[in-house]
Amino acid sequence: MAEILSALRSLMASHSPPLHALIVPSEDYHQSEYVSDRDKRREFVSGFTGSAGLALITKDEARLWTDGRYFLQAIQQLSDQWQLMCIGEDPSVDSWISDNLPREAAIGVDPWCVSVDTAQRWERAFAKNQQKLIQTSSNLVDEVWKNQPPAETNPVIVHPLEFAGRSVAEKLKDLREKLAIERARGIIITALDEVAWLYNIRGSDVSYCPVVHAFAIVTLNSAFLYVDKRKVSSKVSSSVQENGIEVREYGAVSSDVALLASNQLDKDTGLSSGRNDVCETGTCEAEENNNDLIWVDPASCCYALFSKLDAKKMLLQQSPLALAKALKNPVELDGLRNAHIRDGAAVVQYLVWLDKQACNDAISLSNAQMQEIYGASGYFLEGKGASKKRSCTDSWCFFMLLNEPSRETMKLTEVTASDKLEGFRATKEHFRGLSFPTISSVGPNAAVIHYSPQPETCAELDPDSIYLFDSGAQYLDGTTDITRTVHFGKPSEHEKACYTSVLKGHIALGNARFPNGTNGHALDILARIPLWRYGLDYRHGTGHGIGSYLNVHEGPHLISFRPQARNVPLQASMTVTDEPGYYADGNFGIRLENVLVIKEADTEFNFGDKGYLSFEHITWVSLSLGINYSTYINRDLYNP
Amino acid sequence: MAEILSALRSLMASHSPPLHALIVPSEDYHQSEYVSDRDKRREFVSGFTGSAGLALITKDEARLWTDGRYFLQAIQQLSDQWQLMCIGEDPSVDSWISDNLPREAAIGVDPWCVSVDTAQRWERAFAKNQQKLIQTSSNLVDEVWKNQPPAETNPVIVHPLEFAGRSVAEKLKDLREKLAIERARGIIITALDEVAWLYNIRGSDVSYCPVVHAFAIVTLNSAFLYVDKRKVSSKVSSSVQENGIEVREYGAVSSDVALLASNQLDKDTGLSSGRNDVCETGTCEAEENNNDLIWVDPASCCYALFSKLDAKKMLLQQSPLALAKALKNPVELDGLRNAHIRDGAAVVQYLVWLDKQACNDAISLSNAQMQEIYGASGYFLEGKGASKKRSCTDSWCFFMLLNEPSRETMKLTEVTASDKLEGFRATKEHFRGLSFPTISSVGPNAAVIHYSPQPETCAELDPDSIYLFDSGAQYLDGTTDITRTVHFGKPSEHEKACYTSVLKGHIALGNARFPNGTNGHALDILARIPLWRYGLDYRHGTGHGIGSYLNVHEGPHLISFRPQARNVPLQASMTVTDEPGYYADGNFGIRLENVLVIKEADTEFNFGDKGYLSFEHITWVSLSLGINYSTYINRDLYNP
Repeated sequence: MAEILSALRSLMASHSPPLHALIVPSEDYHQSEYVSDRDKRREFVSGFTGSAGLALITKDEARLWTDGRYFLQAIQQLSDQWQLMCIGEDPSVDSWISDNLPREAAIGVDPWCVSVDTAQRWERAFAKNQQKLIQTSSNLVDEVWKNQPPAETNPVIVHPLEFAGRSVAEKLKDLREKLAIERARGIIITALDEVAWLYNIRGSDVSYCPVVHAFAIVTLNSAFLYVDKRKVSSKVSSSVQENGIEVREYGAVSSDVALLASNQLDKDTGLSSGRNDVCETGTCEAEENNNDLIWVDPASCCYALFSKLDAKKMLLQQSPLALAKALKNPVELDGLRNAHIRDGAAVVQYLVWLDKQACNDAISLSNAQMQEIYGASGYFLEGKGASKKRSCTDSWCFFMLLNEPSRETMKLTEVTASDKLEGFRATKEHFRGLSFPTISSVGPNAAVIHYSPQPETCAELDPDSIYLFDSGAQYLDGTTDITRTVHFGKPSEHEKACYTSVLKGHIALGNARFPNGTNGHALDILARIPLWRYGLDYRHGTGHGIGSYLNVHEGPHLISFRPQARNVPLQASMTVTDEPGYYADGNFGIRLENVLVIKEADTEFNFGDKGYLSFEHITWVSLSLGINYSTYINRDLYNP
Repeated sequence: MAEILSALRSLMASHSPPLHALIVPSEDYHQSEYVSDRDKRREFVSGFTGSAGLALITKDEARLWTDGRYFLQAIQQLSDQWQLMCIGEDPSVDSWISDNLPREAAIGVDPWCVSVDTAQRWERAFAKNQQKLIQTSSNLVDEVWKNQPPAETNPVIVHPLEFAGRSVAEKLKDLREKLAIERARGIIITALDEVAWLYNIRGSDVSYCPVVHAFAIVTLNSAFLYVDKRKVSSKVSSSVQENGIEVREYGAVSSDVALLASNQLDKDTGLSSGRNDVCETGTCEAEENNNDLIWVDPASCCYALFSKLDAKKMLLQQSPLALAKALKNPVELDGLRNAHIRDGAAVVQYLVWLDKQACNDAISLSNAQMQEIYGASGYFLEGKGASKKRSCTDSWCFFMLLNEPSRETMKLTEVTASDKLEGFRATKEHFRGLSFPTISSVGPNAAVIHYSPQPETCAELDPDSIYLFDSGAQYLDGTTDITRTVHFGKPSEHEKACYTSVLKGHIALGNARFPNGTNGHALDILARIPLWRYGLDYRHGTGHGIGSYLNVHEGPHLISFRPQARNVPLQASMTVTDEPGYYADGNFGIRLENVLVIKEADTEFNFGDKGYLSFEHITWVSLSLGINYSTYINRDLYNP
């Protein structure tokens, strides 16, 4: 680690101009949250493996900024050379640089790995002290990374209409209508899931995310896909071309953006038809700028491509694909519902299997010992004889017998357990892999919000500790994400009280009805109020959108205690998770997560004619802290 | 009304430059919410009497913008020549002007009656279409207003330390410390309640608000009060001067701001001491701008005074007095508590008196009729005999006997009833008048959120209708504000359901605990969720600060569904109301309002070391829709 820093500092010193500091963001060229191994530059330099964070290397210091989900993990992973900066508590990276680095300092960053919004925010902050953001001509981390994995060459797959629900032709038509309304003649699409969604393609370039490393440019007449052509089979190629999409090499995007800026990308611009469409709507008075803008989403487009455009002819606003992708079509919604039924079955099988491990321990205990562990009203004590063996005619045991006729002898750790869960999922139809690294965490590890267990170091499951697992899968018809927290023995009063508070928040949010126009920030408090009553809280958001066989985290909406820079109201047909938690550092963690679909609510009245919304829970796994008390099914809880 | 518009249009045409439109805001020179009769210019031109609104007069049109509290009232009050623009539903005034008035149009406004923020927002919007905001050299409305009331000459009163709790010297010291921290050498104070609070003076220039028409300028060494000197008795004058405050004529503020800008207001600037103080803290590196700024609050300062300053040497941010005034000191808090006990007693006397009117009707009814009206569990049917007369040994009747030995014979209308309420308040110690026009409203009138009954046209109280009253008073030790909604007979199931939903929201908000840093916008949803469940809502905010013998509406915090431009977290020692409602247009209205004091919560834990807050309810009047079922006292509801 020390050698990496010292090699980077040499490059910083010999850079022209010499750099006082180098910023290494977590993101790839597409501002992705999850990146391929090749793109894990921030992890390579810092050793911190979390999905979000930013490294800053100066001549004498190395600092890592990350958010509340990762404070504990970062403390564990960072070496002495690194100092942790807690987002929300410590100064932000730009104000730290502005206040602590010398006047006129040069701060380098690879302009492909930073968004327009972020780079411009930094520039404004640096300007106060005459500091400058320098776009490095190459990525300095790549230069010192000897064993950097090569670029992926995984094949591009066509995502069939039976799962996508809407054809590429229809999506391009919708997009071009939006371009015409905004008087734009083209759009640069850099977010990997937006490219995949628009062109109905999928891939496996990034672990857990079925996306392809690709850019897209769409004009009123043309559509381009920039991708390593080795990934595109002739069959896929002809399918893509049938939709009028021209495939070009990944690296060509840079020069093509320059051509787009000078209006030379389209051979036959044929703009007159688009113009006429707009004029018919009577908005043609201002002749200037008519269909002359290039649409760029400053939150997702990298600074490198932005810098090739004419600032006066840019439309800097949220990509229309972000919302279009978030509003699931009926086929996607049915796919998500079905995927969650299969996924729920796998999770229930897993819970039964876990219970059986405890069960086989428990049945060798005396009645008194069982009462001690399970309480007087416990599952095992139901029926006539308190000491009778568990009956295997009930549905839980039926699952068990079907899948697991006898107790396994392997050691039950966070990793072997989560492998078992993956195994149950792998048997389900349309399964394609996990949607993120399974968080399988016992006791104190459960307090590490985005804990990632390692085979060598992970903990064993423990009848005296809480076990939290947050996991999901990719199925061809939908992406899943679920968190449950269970205890195999007798939880403490405090654990029960905390679990109850989290569950109350989960239910309060999941049961909410609210008028159109309400954003997720306004709803967030519903999940926290039961915790706040006791002076408890959690340091993460409460909900995120989820893709249709795409990224498990998907915008543009959020349910968060932080106001969003872009106000995106929740709308019918969006997906969103409901996942409050509570984390007692060094002790235990609790989180409960369902996936919800936003739907029109059947309210008695409709004050203000706004229309009211509510949630359909599509997650089908019981909620209970005691693993064997699992008698409540979502339907009962959420549709009283 | 037509003559006024035509006279104004003549003045607009002869103005230099000629005006395409004239904006007439509601505000006075101090951006007050409630203004003196002389300053009711918007009401004079439009006929609309609500406290908030903005009139726009063009050559051919007259439009009035107001918010959801006043939609119904404005519809009733505006003549055919006026068109209502609903804030939140119709385009804002600036975008309407930008989209509908010609390119390069000149839009006039009196720069004394508009804030810096508002004027600059308009200028930005107008610039899109090369339109210009013109500062009229005189107020055109004053020129056409033949019988405009003269300026008030009410005496200035010293607000004694036993009520103010903090001396002028201490307040000036605190303020100057804030100036030094922000490197400002002076501040212009334009908000009437800030002037009154800082200098511990009160007056009666504006109905319901015990303020004085005055400006203030405070520098590191001097303090000035700009006021009509006829209002200042020699006794008050010497008291003010003892605190080092120089009294100057109201009109002198304009030239003194110009002197302040050129650093000529202080004879002996003596800035070195202030400078040294700041330098000792080690923040003296940048020599420029050191204690050279003039602090102006762009939300409250008028555009006229702002225009006399050097833009480069201004500190444009919220006045430090806004927060200082909102954080009540212990003497003010005790005063508010005591004032609310007396005020609560007056309101309870009023409820008993109202009940007696119904009672005297009711006791002539048969048992069956009473059951029909009051239900089987009603007050009158308690005890052994269902038909027994009301016993006068209970405390309600005791009050009645004490104050009202027999039923009055006057006609019971919205106005006579509210006069009675004022009468009860007037008997209380330290009473100085009402804090706003009492909203006393029967049935459909209760749906007019800020209804103001007039003696000639108001409704009679009706045993079959809901009665809503929202009222408050000024006492020397505190300002009060309370709303209750009652029914004298048998409310409908729908009325009961709506009342219950409003009450649930009122309790949910009033019972909340929340970490420091939470703002009122985040809490707002708690009051709405029970209504949203049925598709119901209300078109107003949920809470506002309240003054200490000052304005009944006081910032800088709010509880509102709209995010605040300035994020002001709720803090311990602030006051805030809790007043959700529901309004069925043309039918009935419900609102329940208590005043709360924010306090540190005694939570079991303190996650994140933020400290948690909760509310102390200082309003002492029962909550019940049935006027004679009033058995629940706040203490039981809020401190379970």
